[in-house]
Amino acid sequence: MTTWHLTNVRPMGGAAATVSITGGRIAAIAPAAPPAGEPSEDGRGMLLLPGFVEGHTHLDKTTIHLPDWLVNAVGPRIEDKIDTEREWRARTGHDAGAASLALARAFLAAGTTRIRSHVDVDTVGGTRHVARVLETREAMRGLQEIQIVAFPQSGILARQGTERLLDAALAMGADIVGGLDPCAIERDPVRHLDIVFGLAERHGKPVDIHLHEPGTMGAFSLDLILERTRALGMEGKVVVSHAFCLGDIAERERDALLARMAQLGVAIATTAPASRPVPPVAACRAAGVTIFGGNDGIRDTWTPYGSPDMLERAMLIGLRNNFRRDDEVALAFDCVSAAGAQGCGFSDHGLLPGARADLVLVEARTLAEAVVARPVRRLVVSAGRVVARDGVLSA
Amino acid sequence: MTTWHLTNVRPMGGAAATVSITGGRIAAIAPAAPPAGEPSEDGRGMLLLPGFVEGHTHLDKTTIHLPDWLVNAVGPRIEDKIDTEREWRARTGHDAGAASLALARAFLAAGTTRIRSHVDVDTVGGTRHVARVLETREAMRGLQEIQIVAFPQSGILARQGTERLLDAALAMGADIVGGLDPCAIERDPVRHLDIVFGLAERHGKPVDIHLHEPGTMGAFSLDLILERTRALGMEGKVVVSHAFCLGDIAERERDALLARMAQLGVAIATTAPASRPVPPVAACRAAGVTIFGGNDGIRDTWTPYGSPDMLERAMLIGLRNNFRRDDEVALAFDCVSAAGAQGCGFSDHGLLPGARADLVLVEARTLAEAVVARPVRRLVVSAGRVVARDGVLSA
Repeated sequence: MTTWHLTNVRPMGGAAATVSITGGRIAAIAPAAPPAGEPSEDGRGMLLLPGFVEGHTHLDKTTIHLPDWLVNAVGPRIEDKIDTEREWRARTGHDAGAASLALARAFLAAGTTRIRSHVDVDTVGGTRHVARVLETREAMRGLQEIQIVAFPQSGILARQGTERLLDAALAMGADIVGGLDPCAIERDPVRHLDIVFGLAERHGKPVDIHLHEPGTMGAFSLDLILERTRALGMEGKVVVSHAFCLGDIAERERDALLARMAQLGVAIATTAPASRPVPPVAACRAAGVTIFGGNDGIRDTWTPYGSPDMLERAMLIGLRNNFRRDDEVALAFDCVSAAGAQGCGFSDHGLLPGARADLVLVEARTLAEAVVARPVRRLVVSAGRVVARDGVLSA
Repeated sequence: MTTWHLTNVRPMGGAAATVSITGGRIAAIAPAAPPAGEPSEDGRGMLLLPGFVEGHTHLDKTTIHLPDWLVNAVGPRIEDKIDTEREWRARTGHDAGAASLALARAFLAAGTTRIRSHVDVDTVGGTRHVARVLETREAMRGLQEIQIVAFPQSGILARQGTERLLDAALAMGADIVGGLDPCAIERDPVRHLDIVFGLAERHGKPVDIHLHEPGTMGAFSLDLILERTRALGMEGKVVVSHAFCLGDIAERERDALLARMAQLGVAIATTAPASRPVPPVAACRAAGVTIFGGNDGIRDTWTPYGSPDMLERAMLIGLRNNFRRDDEVALAFDCVSAAGAQGCGFSDHGLLPGARADLVLVEARTLAEAVVARPVRRLVVSAGRVVARDGVLSA
């Protein structure tokens, strides 16, 4: 196993150090210069960060690879967006393979080495989108780790056959069972959750449920999710995505739910949208709940926004949570870093010996500056290999 | 007067056209090619936008020109931020001249040709910051128009002598009388507003008041501002900055205030923060109220965030207002464009014959793409002169 050294870098903005890399992992981080004769690269005093984690996106939906701009004229309700998207995908033959590969590569060029992507499974597209994103996962193997959530975007109950399709997607290699608004969309929370948790049990796979439901309705669905997590012994294997309800119920009720989530190891994925109530990052962390970040969809039929730059997502999380102090901005960064790895179950993350050598170098004086200025990624290393320079993937 | 032509550009994303420029102004926008022999530049099919308008910032406060990163450890209250800043500026001898010049130039490189900047006036700094930003205004003359608001950041009533200093700042050349939270900070709304409007009357200058006050307290202050606007015949000469109260009072009360604001020509400057209630852009426009955008401070003792890129501010306004459709994203852009010029009183704005030739070229297919992707500014023209290429100022 060859060893190489990245010299003169400042891990998380600290003192200059040399990172030694062997067999795709960090062998050591030390102030000393590397042994003469071994290959090395000069980090020129740049700030060193661990590879970023995108904890909630939809690689299969994006239009960033298409020649034409997609004009968005969709209605205001979530149902409008679901129906518009399913019909648009069928009508245009949207290729989830090309879409997901283009977006995954853009993420990698910007320093993201681990991604959790929800992928639509429905009675129109079947398991086609999952099959195509599985190809992208294969194409990126060794460069980027991609988790696939089999996601019933159009619901399970109203569209007969969806449960069987989810079952098939999991058998094909999807890693996680998805779910969606048990009350507001599915209109039968017990049946929906019993199917989702049933699939998880049958396949021995974790769960990640989209919960957009606001207020006490969302809190009720969350309560049912926690009940099943405990009953089925799925502690540490459940993520609730969005969990907007935790941003608009009474603080006392919120804190009671957070305490149960902490006990059951149920994590939260937040996109920190500016226009909705959101789970407050500081309160979640104070309660011991892992909360991590993601873009949600990027330039798709739902939204023209989003960027494969997780430093930008960290900035948006910081802005949404009114994190101004440097120690607070560090929490926003943690949402796209250690907390993301923890919440998604990506192992061996971080800047420490034994961890995967996923490294990002940027010109910034401090971690906070990296978040607010989002400088170009001068160097991206994935599993010990240089994969991008100056924001451009290596050949 | 020389005439030159910018050919093959797409104004606001429309059909390709040639813009002819004479004496710093747009002479014509036409599909035809320019007459042979006259100087021209090929716009290569790029999207053409009018120069951007920053409607609410604090050029004097920034630290972007300093060699060291400013670690933010400030307390949570607005008073903490005010006191920390005033003391930090005095202690470090913070140079509002170098600060404002560096930031103004960064704005210009990113396509902003008009800026309204609030500048601190207080009993510690006196009128020193205004004097220094006046120098920046002079240095940028012909390249960028800068309006200066004489801004009592530390209040008027509690710090004796501030009124006299504001008076002096206006006599020195500040363009606009500032004000600040008549109830919450000043604790005597009538006395505060009488001083502010008194200075405006005496100097024949408009008013721009920071109103962070939430809920019904803010609505009360706003009511007093509207009362004075009418009584003093200052229709069209008053801006309320932030106006957070319009985001968290009852809709019926909000709409009644908006109707009065529309009648009196009182405009709103919004920074669209993600972590606070804000005036909804769509409701303001529907009521006929001019609402425009700004960064607020950029990398100063208040906040590490902000960027001299008004396309990014447009994106943040879009995100905060949940503007997803292309026609909605165009409203977000309007906040840093025509509505900004209208609200601040910058004349001859826009892409039309007779307007100042302030032009920005970017590689984008549509206006919405320019907002969400914020591409590098390939060309910036101010008053008919090329001032920047590829994001870098010309010498």
